[in-house]
Amino acid sequence: MIRVGIVGGTGYTGVELLRLLAVHPEVELVAITSRSEAGTPVAELFPNLRGHVDLAFTEPELGTLQDCDLVFFATPNGIAMGMVPELLARGVRVIDLAADFRLRDPALWEQWYGMAHACPDVLAEAVYGLPEVNRGAIREARLVANPGCYPTAVQLGFLPLVEAGLVDTGRLIADTKSGASGAGRKAVVGNLLAEAGESFKAYGVAGHRHQPEIRQGLERVVEGPVGLTFVPHLVPMSRGIHATLYAELRSDEADLQALFERRFAGEPFVDVLPAGAMPETRSVRGANVCRIAVHRPLGARTVVVLSVIDNLVKGASGQAVQNMNIMFGFEEQAGLGAIALIP
Amino acid sequence: MIRVGIVGGTGYTGVELLRLLAVHPEVELVAITSRSEAGTPVAELFPNLRGHVDLAFTEPELGTLQDCDLVFFATPNGIAMGMVPELLARGVRVIDLAADFRLRDPALWEQWYGMAHACPDVLAEAVYGLPEVNRGAIREARLVANPGCYPTAVQLGFLPLVEAGLVDTGRLIADTKSGASGAGRKAVVGNLLAEAGESFKAYGVAGHRHQPEIRQGLERVVEGPVGLTFVPHLVPMSRGIHATLYAELRSDEADLQALFERRFAGEPFVDVLPAGAMPETRSVRGANVCRIAVHRPLGARTVVVLSVIDNLVKGASGQAVQNMNIMFGFEEQAGLGAIALIP
Amino acid sequence: MIRVGIVGGTGYTGVELLRLLAVHPEVELVAITSRSEAGTPVAELFPNLRGHVDLAFTEPELGTLQDCDLVFFATPNGIAMGMVPELLARGVRVIDLAADFRLRDPALWEQWYGMAHACPDVLAEAVYGLPEVNRGAIREARLVANPGCYPTAVQLGFLPLVEAGLVDTGRLIADTKSGASGAGRKAVVGNLLAEAGESFKAYGVAGHRHQPEIRQGLERVVEGPVGLTFVPHLVPMSRGIHATLYAELRSDEADLQALFERRFAGEPFVDVLPAGAMPETRSVRGANVCRIAVHRPLGARTVVVLSVIDNLVKGASGQAVQNMNIMFGFEEQAGLGAIALIP
Amino acid sequence: MIRVGIVGGTGYTGVELLRLLAVHPEVELVAITSRSEAGTPVAELFPNLRGHVDLAFTEPELGTLQDCDLVFFATPNGIAMGMVPELLARGVRVIDLAADFRLRDPALWEQWYGMAHACPDVLAEAVYGLPEVNRGAIREARLVANPGCYPTAVQLGFLPLVEAGLVDTGRLIADTKSGASGAGRKAVVGNLLAEAGESFKAYGVAGHRHQPEIRQGLERVVEGPVGLTFVPHLVPMSRGIHATLYAELRSDEADLQALFERRFAGEPFVDVLPAGAMPETRSVRGANVCRIAVHRPLGARTVVVLSVIDNLVKGASGQAVQNMNIMFGFEEQAGLGAIALIP
Repeated sequence: MIRVGIVGGTGYTGVELLRLLAVHPEVELVAITSRSEAGTPVAELFPNLRGHVDLAFTEPELGTLQDCDLVFFATPNGIAMGMVPELLARGVRVIDLAADFRLRDPALWEQWYGMAHACPDVLAEAVYGLPEVNRGAIREARLVANPGCYPTAVQLGFLPLVEAGLVDTGRLIADTKSGASGAGRKAVVGNLLAEAGESFKAYGVAGHRHQPEIRQGLERVVEGPVGLTFVPHLVPMSRGIHATLYAELRSDEADLQALFERRFAGEPFVDVLPAGAMPETRSVRGANVCRIAVHRPLGARTVVVLSVIDNLVKGASGQAVQNMNIMFGFEEQAGLGAIALIP
Repeated sequence: MIRVGIVGGTGYTGVELLRLLAVHPEVELVAITSRSEAGTPVAELFPNLRGHVDLAFTEPELGTLQDCDLVFFATPNGIAMGMVPELLARGVRVIDLAADFRLRDPALWEQWYGMAHACPDVLAEAVYGLPEVNRGAIREARLVANPGCYPTAVQLGFLPLVEAGLVDTGRLIADTKSGASGAGRKAVVGNLLAEAGESFKAYGVAGHRHQPEIRQGLERVVEGPVGLTFVPHLVPMSRGIHATLYAELRSDEADLQALFERRFAGEPFVDVLPAGAMPETRSVRGANVCRIAVHRPLGARTVVVLSVIDNLVKGASGQAVQNMNIMFGFEEQAGLGAIALIP
Repeated sequence: MIRVGIVGGTGYTGVELLRLLAVHPEVELVAITSRSEAGTPVAELFPNLRGHVDLAFTEPELGTLQDCDLVFFATPNGIAMGMVPELLARGVRVIDLAADFRLRDPALWEQWYGMAHACPDVLAEAVYGLPEVNRGAIREARLVANPGCYPTAVQLGFLPLVEAGLVDTGRLIADTKSGASGAGRKAVVGNLLAEAGESFKAYGVAGHRHQPEIRQGLERVVEGPVGLTFVPHLVPMSRGIHATLYAELRSDEADLQALFERRFAGEPFVDVLPAGAMPETRSVRGANVCRIAVHRPLGARTVVVLSVIDNLVKGASGQAVQNMNIMFGFEEQAGLGAIALIP
Repeated sequence: MIRVGIVGGTGYTGVELLRLLAVHPEVELVAITSRSEAGTPVAELFPNLRGHVDLAFTEPELGTLQDCDLVFFATPNGIAMGMVPELLARGVRVIDLAADFRLRDPALWEQWYGMAHACPDVLAEAVYGLPEVNRGAIREARLVANPGCYPTAVQLGFLPLVEAGLVDTGRLIADTKSGASGAGRKAVVGNLLAEAGESFKAYGVAGHRHQPEIRQGLERVVEGPVGLTFVPHLVPMSRGIHATLYAELRSDEADLQALFERRFAGEPFVDVLPAGAMPETRSVRGANVCRIAVHRPLGARTVVVLSVIDNLVKGASGQAVQNMNIMFGFEEQAGLGAIALIP
C-alpha cells in the first residue's frame, strides 16, 4: 500500500483517477485538493463515488502532500510546475497529468503554452510516461509527465511504422476526433450540449498544443525532423478518441499486420485488431486500452492506421495509474482490469 | 468457483453478463450459447471482451449445460420456459433474465405475452429476484425470475411508501424513461440512431408488460389490488432508466426522508440520496446500484420519488449476478464493485 | 411590411427569431441589440444566418427602437420590464419572450423571480400570448407576454379536459421533459455536453417558475384553485419538449378523442393525433406546432395526455411570430410554414 | 407548376424531398410510390408531414408516372436503371438520387455495385448533377445523376485546388465523417442508437463506392489519373457530413482564401468562410448549402480544406431540387430558402 494524493480533483481526469484508485488494491487515498471546493465531500460533486470515496476536498498544502509516496497533478497547465520541485525535494514522487513536463525544450513550451516555465531544470529529469516506449525509465522516475490524450492515440498508431523506417516521416497526417470531455469540465458556451450536440466540427486547425508533443515523440525515434499535420475534431459524445493516421509507404513490401502485432506483443494495454477490422471508441469506453488497426485501402501506398482510446483512461488517468504501477513495482494491470462498457 | 453457462449471449443482457462474470472471482464461464452465432468467438461480436473472454458461441445443448452449477437465460421471452424443467431436473440452478417466470399467474402471463406458458407448474417455485424484498427466498431458490428493468426501478421507489401504508395505492403513477438499450439488440427501424436520436417520445401507453409485473409486486405488499398508471418513454441515450413516481399521501405527518433511509439501511445496492438531491442516470452507468430521492414539491400531498438504475446492470445482468451471489453464498458484492462512469 | 427590432439577440430565442423573421414576408428587421456583442455581425455568432441576416448587434438604445412598429425582447428575465413602459409610451408594440409580464400578480412574480416588479401597473395591460386561448385580446394588445415553453405544452394539453370540467383539477400532474436549449445559451457546467449528454435527470423538483404560470392559466379557466405537481427533466438532446400529463376523470363517459379534436379544430398550430398515436419531439423540430395525443391506459380513470413542441418555436420564438401575425393582421401562418425536420 | 412524381418515398431522401417539395412554389406533387407501403398515407409514416402532404403511397406504375414532367428516384441502387429508359421514352425527365447513373464507365459500375448495368447506353446521356460544375449541361438534361453525399462535400472542397493545378493530385486524402442518416432508413443492428450512439468509428476503409465517384469527378478536371485515399467515419448524430481534405501544395505562392472565394463567387449554395474559420455541421442542418474553409496549418505545404453539408439536403434531396430548378428554368433558389437550424 502506498499513500497517494491528488492535486486538483474537480476536473474529469481527477474524478477518473478517483474512480480507478478507489478500487486499486495497493493504494490508500490520503488527500484530494481543490481550492474552489475545499470542504465539499468529493461524492457530493461526483455522485458516482458515493459509498466509494469518503474524502472531502482540501486546500492544496505541502504539509499534507509531503506525507504521500506519490502525488498526481490533475490541474490545469502551469500549476504543477510551481509545486513539483518542493515535492521532489521531500522525496515525493509525482505524476503530472497536465502538460507542464511533456515538452523537453522550455522554449518550445513557452511558445505553445504562453508562459515561462517555472522550473526548466526539472524538465530534463521528467520521464515521458508512455509505457510502450519508456517503461524502463518510468520505473526509475521521480517525475513522470503523463502524455496528452491525442498524443497517446497518435504515437501508438505511428510508432511501428516510424520505428521500422517504413514511411515518409516528412508528411504524416493525423486526423483526430475527440469526445467533449477532452475539453475539460469548464463552463464554456461552445461545449454546451445545445452547442456541441448533434454537430461535428474541426477546431485548432491553425495549431494545437498536442502537435509539438507528438512531433517530439516521433522525432526521438527518427532522430531527425518530422513533418506532421494534426487536425483535431469535436465529436458529439462524452468520451473517446479516434485517430485516423495517414502515412506514405516507402516500399511495397512490408507485412504491416505482422509488424503491428509484433511491435505490441506482450503489451498489456495495446490491442492490435485482426486484419480488416475497424475499432470503435465504445470498445474502449472506461477501459485502459488502445485498440489499433492498420489498413492499406485499395492497395495503394497510403497506410491508414485507426487508433482508439478512452481519452480519460488510456488517454489520461488510466495511463497515469499504469505509470504508477510501473514506478512502484506493482503488477502493471493492477486496478486496471475493468472491461469496456458496450453498449 | 462455480461453473456457469449463459443461454442466449448475443443480446445486451448477455454481453453485460459476460462483462461482469469475466472478472468475477468465484465464476468459471463454461458455455455461452447462440443458435445464430454458433462458432463465432464472443469477442468478435463484442470487441470490448477481447483479451477477457476466450469462449466462442455454441449451440444451446443440454449436454453442455447440465454440467453447470448455474445457467443464466438471456434469451427472448418464451425460450427459457422450454428448457428450464430439464435443467432443474438435472440439478442445475437457473436465473432467467427474461419474463418467463416473473408473473405467478399463468393466465396473466398468457394475456400479456401472447402465448401459453410451457411449464405453469414450475411458476409456483420460481422466486422473484428482487433481493431487497426476497433475499431469503433467493438464497434457497433453484429458479430465480430476474425482475424487469422498469419493475426494479419502480418497485424500489414505491416500496417504502407502500409498505408503510402511507399512500393511496389506488392511484399510483410511474412515469418512466429508458435509454435505447432497453429495447434490446434487434434490428428495428424505430430504434435506429437516425430515428430515436435527438428525439423523445412515449411508447406502450396503451399497456406495457412491465405494468402487471410491478402491480403484482406491490399487491403482494398491500395484500389487495393496486391501481397503477405506467407510461414508459424512450430517451436518446444508450443506458439508464429514470423513474419518476407519483403517489398521494394519506396524511401529512411522515418524515419521508427518514423512512427511505431506514428502509434501505444496509442494502448494498440501494443508495438513498440526501434530501433535496436529484439523481442522474449517469451516476449509475455501469454500476449495480439504484439511487433514489424522495420529494414533496411545494409541500403538497403528492410525493415524488426519483429512482435511477442502469437498465443493464441493476435492471438486468448486475441484479442477476447479485442473485447468483446470494444463491451460492458468495459475498453479495462480489464482482459488482465497479464504480459508475462519470462523465 | 413592419419595422421590427429585437432586444437581446445572442440567446437561443434570439437566433431563432432571426431565423424566422429573416424569411418573413411582412417584416423588415431594423435592429438587433446586445450589450456584450455590440459591433459583431450577427452571422459571425450564428453562422447559419450567413447570407440571410446582414445586421450587426448594436447597443440597446431607445433612439433606434422607438422607430420600430414592434420590439421583441429575447432578454433574461427582469430586463424588459425596465424598458417596456417607455416603448409603449412611444407607440411601439412589444412582445416579451421572457417572464416579466406572464404572471398577473406582482407579489407572485416577486416570490418566484426574486426581484420587485419594475412596472406592476403595466402588468394588467399585458396579454398572455397563447393564441389558442387569447387570440382576440392578442389582436388588440400593445404588450404581449409570450408564454414559457413548458406552459405552452402543458396548458394546451390540459385545456380541453379542464374547460370541459371532466377532470379533478385538485391533483393534476405534469411530468415534463426538455432538451438542453431550454436552459439557454449560458456557460454553465451542468449543461456541458460531457455532463448532460448520455444522461437523464429531473431538476427543479422543489419548485419551478413555470408551475405558477401554468396554474394561473388553468385557474383562469376553472375560476378557482388548481392543484398541480410539475416535475421538469433534462433530456440529452438540443431541442424539444415532451409533456406527459396525468389527470383523474370525474366520469367514465367522455369521448376524449372527439373532445380534443373539436377543441382544436381550426387551430393552425395544434395537431391532435389519431387515437392511439404517440407524438415524438422530432415531429415538431423547427416547426411551430404542438402535436397532442390523448390516452386512457388500460381503460382506467387516469387520462394521459402527450404533448410535444419545439421549445424554441411553438415554445418561444415561433409563438412570438404567431402573436406578431395576429397583432398586425397578417395571415397567422405567415413565415411559419416550414415543415419539421425528420430525421 | 410542373407535375412531379417520386419513386421510393419511404427512405430519408424521400421524406426530405417531400419536405422540400411540399412548400415549393412551382411543384405539384402527383405521386409518391412505395411497394411496401402502398396505401399508407405518407403523413402516417412521417408525422412531420401531417397537414402538408395529403398523398398516400402507391405502387410504382408507369401509367401514373408517365404523366409527370419530372420523376425523382429515391430508391436503393439498381432500381432506377430498370425504369428510366421507359420514362425517358415517354418524355419524362428524371433525377436519380441513387448511384445508377453516377459512374460513366459501366465496367466500373459493375465492379463497385456488384451487378450488371441495365442500360449502359443511357449512361452516356446522364448528366452528373453537381451544379457548381455542370450547370449548363443540367439545364438541358433529360436525366440527371444526383451526386452522392460524400462526393458533393469532397469535390466542392477539392475543386478550386485541382482546377488551379495547385496540388499534387497523386495523393489526395479525404477523411470524411457522416451522421447516421447517411446509412439510410434500414433496420440494421450496427445503426441502432444503442450501437452507434456515444461512439465513433471508421467504416468501409478497404473501399467505399463514393471513392470512384469522387475520383471520376476530379479526373475529369485533371484529365488524368488521380490518387485518392477516402476514409469515411460514422458520427453519433443524425444529419451532417464533415469532410476534412488534405492535399500537398506544389508551390508556396497561392492565396488560397482568394482562390476559393473567386471560385465560388456567385454560387448561391456554396459559402466560403472567412480565413481562420472552421465550419460546424449544424450550421447547414436542414439547409441546401455547403460551407467551406481553407487552411494551411503552421504554414506547411499541406492544405487542409474543411467542407460541411447536410447529407440529406445539399448531399441529396436539396441538391436534387436545385437540379430540378435548373432543368425547368425556375429560380435556382426556389423552395430552398430555409435557414439552417441552430441550435
